Amino acid sequence: MSVKVGVVGGSGYTGGELLRILAVHPNVEVTYVTSREYAGKPFTAIHPHLRGFYKGLKFSEVSVQLMAEKCDTVFVNTPHGVSSSLTPQLLEIGLKVVDLSADFRLKNHEDYRIWYEAVHPRPDLLEKAVYGLPELYREKIRSATLVACPGCNSTAALLSLIPAFEQKLVDVERIAVDLKVGSSEAGIKPSLGTHHPERANVMRPYEAEGHRHVAEVEQELSKIAGKPVKVALVPHAVGAVRGALASSHVWLQDPNIDETDIWKAYAARYGKEPFVRIVHGTPFRYPDPKYVIGSNFVDVGFAVEKRIGRAVFFAAIDNLMKGAAGQAVQCFNILHGFDERAGLNSPPLRPA
Amino acid sequence: MSVKVGVVGGSGYTGGELLRILAVHPNVEVTYVTSREYAGKPFTAIHPHLRGFYKGLKFSEVSVQLMAEKCDTVFVNTPHGVSSSLTPQLLEIGLKVVDLSADFRLKNHEDYRIWYEAVHPRPDLLEKAVYGLPELYREKIRSATLVACPGCNSTAALLSLIPAFEQKLVDVERIAVDLKVGSSEAGIKPSLGTHHPERANVMRPYEAEGHRHVAEVEQELSKIAGKPVKVALVPHAVGAVRGALASSHVWLQDPNIDETDIWKAYAARYGKEPFVRIVHGTPFRYPDPKYVIGSNFVDVGFAVEKRIGRAVFFAAIDNLMKGAAGQAVQCFNILHGFDERAGLNSPPLRPA
Amino acid sequence: MSVKVGVVGGSGYTGGELLRILAVHPNVEVTYVTSREYAGKPFTAIHPHLRGFYKGLKFSEVSVQLMAEKCDTVFVNTPHGVSSSLTPQLLEIGLKVVDLSADFRLKNHEDYRIWYEAVHPRPDLLEKAVYGLPELYREKIRSATLVACPGCNSTAALLSLIPAFEQKLVDVERIAVDLKVGSSEAGIKPSLGTHHPERANVMRPYEAEGHRHVAEVEQELSKIAGKPVKVALVPHAVGAVRGALASSHVWLQDPNIDETDIWKAYAARYGKEPFVRIVHGTPFRYPDPKYVIGSNFVDVGFAVEKRIGRAVFFAAIDNLMKGAAGQAVQCFNILHGFDERAGLNSPPLRPA
Amino acid sequence: MSVKVGVVGGSGYTGGELLRILAVHPNVEVTYVTSREYAGKPFTAIHPHLRGFYKGLKFSEVSVQLMAEKCDTVFVNTPHGVSSSLTPQLLEIGLKVVDLSADFRLKNHEDYRIWYEAVHPRPDLLEKAVYGLPELYREKIRSATLVACPGCNSTAALLSLIPAFEQKLVDVERIAVDLKVGSSEAGIKPSLGTHHPERANVMRPYEAEGHRHVAEVEQELSKIAGKPVKVALVPHAVGAVRGALASSHVWLQDPNIDETDIWKAYAARYGKEPFVRIVHGTPFRYPDPKYVIGSNFVDVGFAVEKRIGRAVFFAAIDNLMKGAAGQAVQCFNILHGFDERAGLNSPPLRPA
Repeated sequence: MSVKVGVVGGSGYTGGELLRILAVHPNVEVTYVTSREYAGKPFTAIHPHLRGFYKGLKFSEVSVQLMAEKCDTVFVNTPHGVSSSLTPQLLEIGLKVVDLSADFRLKNHEDYRIWYEAVHPRPDLLEKAVYGLPELYREKIRSATLVACPGCNSTAALLSLIPAFEQKLVDVERIAVDLKVGSSEAGIKPSLGTHHPERANVMRPYEAEGHRHVAEVEQELSKIAGKPVKVALVPHAVGAVRGALASSHVWLQDPNIDETDIWKAYAARYGKEPFVRIVHGTPFRYPDPKYVIGSNFVDVGFAVEKRIGRAVFFAAIDNLMKGAAGQAVQCFNILHGFDERAGLNSPPLRPA
Repeated sequence: MSVKVGVVGGSGYTGGELLRILAVHPNVEVTYVTSREYAGKPFTAIHPHLRGFYKGLKFSEVSVQLMAEKCDTVFVNTPHGVSSSLTPQLLEIGLKVVDLSADFRLKNHEDYRIWYEAVHPRPDLLEKAVYGLPELYREKIRSATLVACPGCNSTAALLSLIPAFEQKLVDVERIAVDLKVGSSEAGIKPSLGTHHPERANVMRPYEAEGHRHVAEVEQELSKIAGKPVKVALVPHAVGAVRGALASSHVWLQDPNIDETDIWKAYAARYGKEPFVRIVHGTPFRYPDPKYVIGSNFVDVGFAVEKRIGRAVFFAAIDNLMKGAAGQAVQCFNILHGFDERAGLNSPPLRPA
Repeated sequence: MSVKVGVVGGSGYTGGELLRILAVHPNVEVTYVTSREYAGKPFTAIHPHLRGFYKGLKFSEVSVQLMAEKCDTVFVNTPHGVSSSLTPQLLEIGLKVVDLSADFRLKNHEDYRIWYEAVHPRPDLLEKAVYGLPELYREKIRSATLVACPGCNSTAALLSLIPAFEQKLVDVERIAVDLKVGSSEAGIKPSLGTHHPERANVMRPYEAEGHRHVAEVEQELSKIAGKPVKVALVPHAVGAVRGALASSHVWLQDPNIDETDIWKAYAARYGKEPFVRIVHGTPFRYPDPKYVIGSNFVDVGFAVEKRIGRAVFFAAIDNLMKGAAGQAVQCFNILHGFDERAGLNSPPLRPA
Repeated sequence: MSVKVGVVGGSGYTGGELLRILAVHPNVEVTYVTSREYAGKPFTAIHPHLRGFYKGLKFSEVSVQLMAEKCDTVFVNTPHGVSSSLTPQLLEIGLKVVDLSADFRLKNHEDYRIWYEAVHPRPDLLEKAVYGLPELYREKIRSATLVACPGCNSTAALLSLIPAFEQKLVDVERIAVDLKVGSSEAGIKPSLGTHHPERANVMRPYEAEGHRHVAEVEQELSKIAGKPVKVALVPHAVGAVRGALASSHVWLQDPNIDETDIWKAYAARYGKEPFVRIVHGTPFRYPDPKYVIGSNFVDVGFAVEKRIGRAVFFAAIDNLMKGAAGQAVQCFNILHGFDERAGLNSPPLRPA
């Protein structure tokens, strides 16, 4: 069975990654891909890796009418503020939407106003949207019509901490999530900050006073904790193209808790997850995004320093895969009842 | 239909890449993988990317007996000098062998003696072996029992030049192939030369007086030219993990030849090749290994400077894929009558 | 005036960096350099950048006798456990020692036993040694005979936090120092972990349960706080050759404190320091080791998130300079009454 | 003695590198630095490495009047086409000019028209300008008022070949110079081609049909050869920030010439050059820009393959130093009678 799929916003890195996955997805026919900048041009005008694929297809302008004709499901991959006006139209004509923008992640429109500095045009849809983290909302995604995929940093931060929060292992008042990310997270648009001579070899903090992804992390962790949780989250650009690592520094509720107990909690929680791998024991002792590149896996692990009753939980993802396009396809598979691994079953690339 | 496959030499980068491809190959069951160093250990002892794959399998010692029981076809992925004694035993018990070592590439045992400084133990098999470059020997591979896969540098050098030689476009007396390669080409064994602080950011010539891969390049080009051809081939380590680019500097037989004529010759020759993509025209004007990473593609292109009657032909590959494991699987697919793209159909990873 | 200088341990990266600095130091004559592995060989046997420098000098075996004859001051740059037996001999014959090893950093020999798993042979010298962080101990260094230079991670961690601790701005019970470091920090000896294909593009936590540098950080912060302080410190290998960044996550004592007040505290504390630069305000908003490469500078900065009463303090260094050889020369300059900037006055290299 | 120096074009990478060198040059006082984009702003607005240097100085608009008042010598570091109109004005008011643009490198205004697609406004000055390669024109530079510094690629190409041409060792009809360069060569302006995700890990040919630097290389080699020489020159962007390597592939006039003879020719020619280092013999066998980073050295070496009568000559430089700012300062030193090494005497940075 094949679903007719549209991609709104196909000329950036997440768009290119969606097209890379969907090109060989057994249940997908890509019928419609938009790009304002490249409308009328072949995908190879901006995606040299796609040479030889999608022959005959070209980028289109956005047309709800055409999507109504050509698509069953649409991946909406626009800047925030754009999806919030387009997605309602797509829902209205009966399409399912997997939204990769930030527009439907927050449940509270007041949070949206604060973090995105804009009034949300359709607060009614915020409740209807399902937050697209399958490890939390798989069942809801199955019957959703609108999936709001998490940000890449949020995905890593949340997956590092969910079992620890659920099992009440940590002091939820003092959470410091230190993130390291590759350059592809900045998207395809050049700037001085992403200029190779400036971006190579960096260890550069950014948005250190409160990155927008904090909002969704706090929303989800608060739900689990049953009370408002505030999180310090500081991303750093580091010398890689792909990858995001969350190092979540915490203090343990019970300083005498055993490393094995923590391992058990994580193994139990994530044991059946198709894309979570628990990393524990030598060699390759801790998660490193390097070993998930090109795949939808998240490698999760941790270290405990009993001496001072603290731990650090790690989650490593490919920011374009589990942090964006891969997770969107995972949600798409769940939504349509396909094998959750369809199109996502290859091991990571290594070395890379 | 599923072939039972063994891999001799599974703990290096080419071995890990074979296992990455074969894990999702629709016609393969991997039954036996050897490693002297890691015998008895799970693949993850050295291949962190394979977490969650090949559950139950461990590295074995090399046993011809066990391969006889467990395998139909064996990928032999050993240092040269090892395959030449193992492969004959495997052939004798009726297995098919796809050899990734250098031991059966040269037709003339005297060449082997000169370039590999050893007497070949089974010169009789040199004629029987088929040089595993499908673009030259697809038909022979179909019925081969022993395929000798080309070296990575040779693959790039040859694919850049084959149409030019076949169409007698260039002065075959003056060929300078300048190669750029990523660090994975050096294999998994650490050394000062591959130590990250020394290897990062290099532009380092190596084996500049005559790299061993020259022998096979000269052998194949001489066959095409119908006379002995000597090639200057100088590899350079550059700042990347994967990738190899051949820049073949030549002088044109007819200085007035049109760029379009050259393009036609290349397009005609490679038009039906499933893994050759011709790169011509802006943007992304010339081949760059960056845009084939993780795939079995070779991107081929060229530039002509009429002013001085010279051209440069480029071929870009992922050295672990079209330069090693990918090409071996391509040969395996041909050998077994599978779709040549089986297990190799994903687009490259980008950005990477 | 010129001091005759010896370097024990000249064939690693810190040794090479000392030789790079000392080659053009106006007050130094290098007379003696040791290397067990390269004794009898010219420096270029391992230091290609030094071609053309130090003509006539070769690596020697370690001889206290020869150092007595040839040197006034010795940089001891050995693994820990070696300096503790050599340095006392050098002091005995009247030499001054700038020690780059960990052997004399801790004041309490019990701490040494715990963290370095060895009994210290000369606990009496621990008190005599001056911790070589000029920003804390400039006056003591002036009259020292033994300076124990801090570790690279410790230097970054301490310099990020000293003013905050002195001004009692932060909750000293909850300090999480997240470090990112380049590959040169691992030294010149190759291993799988530093093999380029494995080390490139990493975001790899290591020694996450308690890195040895914690001991000195806690020692110095406890002194300032006037009570025992425990620090969570987690280093991460990231994709660069040089550089170390400390991101010290803290919670503020007074959540209403102004960013400007913090800036004032740091500016006041570090204003006259020749190698501390305060980074504040756009562009290039936060410290990044990229912009101190090749220099002895430490760039210090911070971000405050009032919403949750937390801050993060950053310190960026070149791990081989302010984190090792540069700081050692700075101490040497102070010790000998030279201009503190002698040999260290060049701006950083950029881009690099 | 101190010369008052102006820099026209101070906000790019070459400008920043000039400022880095001149900050500690013993005979220079920088009095005037221009930038159209950053006029009125401190240098740190674009040069974070210069924090703490040049206090009080800001970028100015270009004013010949002000340069007349403030400067003795001006480094003109503009795009080609700008210098050709500015430099004559500076010369007229009696200033000396070290020009880093391409405007005065070619002796023949017809060549300029062809390669730069513009009519040269002051062909009379082309003869007066001295080509700023000290290894060829040291004596002329001493008495010059206008020095036209070579391009980075030209510097590497020429220095690899000069002794071979002078000694008539090679077939001058078949010269293929394959260049590898770091990303800083593209300057400070961002573009898709220099965007980190696209630029990292590349092996990307560019301007492969005839790079402009060919014109000066052919001009100088023709002079030496005594007849018109045409050169194939193909640059490749590779994965590094700094560095340029020329690999000049040639065929030998006498195929029996000994490697030692070639070495002697090079050693004799370059033996007294303060910035040329001959690389020969293990380890670190061939030149690699990695080992000249941050310095004005050019490392020159070669490999000979007697079997086919060919050789390859290598020259490795830091493109911003010997390829631009460093060489400009070297010319400045010669012009003013200073020690040629003034401001340029530090060893390279390693590892970097």
